[in-house]
Amino acid sequence: MAVNLNPPQADLLPPLAGVELLVAEAGIKTPGRKDVLVVRLDKGNTVAGVFTRNRFCAAPVQLCQEHLAAGVQIRALVVNTGNANAGTGVDGRQRALRVCQAVAAQSGLETEQVLPFSTGVILEPLPADKIITALPTLRSASWADAAQAIMTTDTIAKAASRTLLLDGQPVTVTGIAKGSGMIHPNMATMLGFVATDAAITRPLLNQLLREVADLSFNSITVDGDTSTNDSFILISTGKSQAGLIDSVEQPAYQQLRQALLAVSIELAQAIVRDGEGATKFITVEVNGGRSVAECKDVAYAIARSPLVKTAFFASDPNLGRLLAAIGYAGVADLDVDRLSLYLDDVLVACNGGRSPDYREEQGQAVMNQSEITVRVELGRGAASARVWTCDFSYEYVRINADYRS
Amino acid sequence: MAVNLNPPQADLLPPLAGVELLVAEAGIKTPGRKDVLVVRLDKGNTVAGVFTRNRFCAAPVQLCQEHLAAGVQIRALVVNTGNANAGTGVDGRQRALRVCQAVAAQSGLETEQVLPFSTGVILEPLPADKIITALPTLRSASWADAAQAIMTTDTIAKAASRTLLLDGQPVTVTGIAKGSGMIHPNMATMLGFVATDAAITRPLLNQLLREVADLSFNSITVDGDTSTNDSFILISTGKSQAGLIDSVEQPAYQQLRQALLAVSIELAQAIVRDGEGATKFITVEVNGGRSVAECKDVAYAIARSPLVKTAFFASDPNLGRLLAAIGYAGVADLDVDRLSLYLDDVLVACNGGRSPDYREEQGQAVMNQSEITVRVELGRGAASARVWTCDFSYEYVRINADYRS
Repeated sequence: MAVNLNPPQADLLPPLAGVELLVAEAGIKTPGRKDVLVVRLDKGNTVAGVFTRNRFCAAPVQLCQEHLAAGVQIRALVVNTGNANAGTGVDGRQRALRVCQAVAAQSGLETEQVLPFSTGVILEPLPADKIITALPTLRSASWADAAQAIMTTDTIAKAASRTLLLDGQPVTVTGIAKGSGMIHPNMATMLGFVATDAAITRPLLNQLLREVADLSFNSITVDGDTSTNDSFILISTGKSQAGLIDSVEQPAYQQLRQALLAVSIELAQAIVRDGEGATKFITVEVNGGRSVAECKDVAYAIARSPLVKTAFFASDPNLGRLLAAIGYAGVADLDVDRLSLYLDDVLVACNGGRSPDYREEQGQAVMNQSEITVRVELGRGAASARVWTCDFSYEYVRINADYRS
Repeated sequence: MAVNLNPPQADLLPPLAGVELLVAEAGIKTPGRKDVLVVRLDKGNTVAGVFTRNRFCAAPVQLCQEHLAAGVQIRALVVNTGNANAGTGVDGRQRALRVCQAVAAQSGLETEQVLPFSTGVILEPLPADKIITALPTLRSASWADAAQAIMTTDTIAKAASRTLLLDGQPVTVTGIAKGSGMIHPNMATMLGFVATDAAITRPLLNQLLREVADLSFNSITVDGDTSTNDSFILISTGKSQAGLIDSVEQPAYQQLRQALLAVSIELAQAIVRDGEGATKFITVEVNGGRSVAECKDVAYAIARSPLVKTAFFASDPNLGRLLAAIGYAGVADLDVDRLSLYLDDVLVACNGGRSPDYREEQGQAVMNQSEITVRVELGRGAASARVWTCDFSYEYVRINADYRS
């Protein structure tokens, strides 16, 4: 079902200095499948993370935030699939903590140096013993193996990589992600892990994390539901030969930012392309707003509307639904007579109504494509925003109405 | 498909003094079907209205607001189905105005004394000439006929009535409504018209309008999309023998409020019961909030979630989705360990996780019903809110993915 998405190619995902990947089979949900990933990080790294704002945030998310705030150096990540450890209260925290303790003991670390991540069924106790028992069986893995090990209802593993030269020295940015609905048929979570061997100070890494998250993982929607476990982690190992980036003025900062952005956007888009039941990949671009926030409100109103999304599924150039979504996006003083609406490069609406030159065949031709850009020019400022989404199909209902299995 | 909804019974909808109903066939969309309703109001009436906040509000909505603000006495409403006259710019306003002029001329009124309403296809020119040509053919109609004449994709007409004694005098409240998605497969709009022969001052009628709208038509969602044409009109003809209501302290005020609320809630619920593809009718009750607004936020987060709605369709007691929706409702300092979640009277979650006493069979038994109440006790205050919604089925996608016909 995924829209123009290919599995990761192992030869395009080289190892990254300072990052060791290991996977194991704990038998959490599906037998014969790798379901635990451990990422070991060499000393000298820097790690930053952003997490779901859902008040029902999962036990591992709470521990991640505490461990990152503890000021110790993070040396390992442990990820399990098959169980989200969300909605599990105090017991869930204790189970996540036991997993961290076991990973720490195995590598001679403090518990706070381990970040835990879980994805899968909500409201069921984490089988911590199974994970702990599997730790001695961890085997070295590639990025492609790692991407595979964190999948839940994803139909295709998600990984991306870029190499660039900073100060003439090769630097790599590589990441993996999982997710296929903001919340799955009971499976929760979007997870993203992006690492680079470039060296960068902690304040700049934190700044990059937020900028990159906003323009990638925070710019997608499949069904509008925000999960209990969403996590995005940025890792700098500092093992490349390039110099330390300690100022936004350095050309290297911008170069690294572009590479991180490219990898993160590719991963975020992969989640949408693999969105539950997706048959189309939609880019919603909103320009000419007074603020990025209002542009994003308009973009998300379009991208979340079930009526717009079913029209894309039907390849129906149903412009009224797009205009209605713009109209209820919450921009209080929006002058609808000043905005223009495009499907790809076809002007479909302006002056508060249908463009006189617009012909239904033009809209139909764009709608028949598997990749479509909706562009709104608000005509009231210089701000822009871009959001990616997919259509809404019978298959979405089937997947989400299927009894939990 | 409608959930436990029966067509209006003509004998339960008596004529209302001061209101004359007329319908005609203008041939706007479907031949052989009444598609124009004119409501004539006797002198001495009071009319109040609330309208969509969609910035792409339709031409008739704009004119309604202007005519109500003009301070003249409203003497006629004209409603057409088959065309929404939305997204039609200046030309759309002129067409709506011409219809008002023709209705006014027919009855010896000023144009401002006529309120226009349209529902149907967006972005197509209103066939004003067809409507105007049909006016001489208007024939006296019952409330049930009137409810029939304003349907678009509704599968069942919607009308409700209550009688009560005010100061020992009989008073009637009767209303009709249409709508089956906030926006239809191209059909737009929820319309509600409620009339009473009780006499009430304009300030109190305005106050009642807002209170009643908030607790009825503003407490429902089918797909979360706000239409371009939503309108709710409250009419007091003052033709009953009961005395004028001019104070909220009068017992008659509270009695009339209850009757208006009962009629409006019945109509609003009928829209949900007839929601596109609906197979279940869901009440979401949120209690124990600090404010009504936060209770409504939580209720709507649940009621709008595609994941929650597909779980209802599947009769799947998928509690994680309910908790996740509560968690992302935007109540920033919500303590999830203090809230309780009930399906009907079954306690399913408390203390941040599943209730120890909860058994899946209990949740399953409730989920199998066609009418279900989700109750959330936030445990942080005394405010409450209640919202009605329906489930999300294959049929919803089919209806909305069908090409416009």
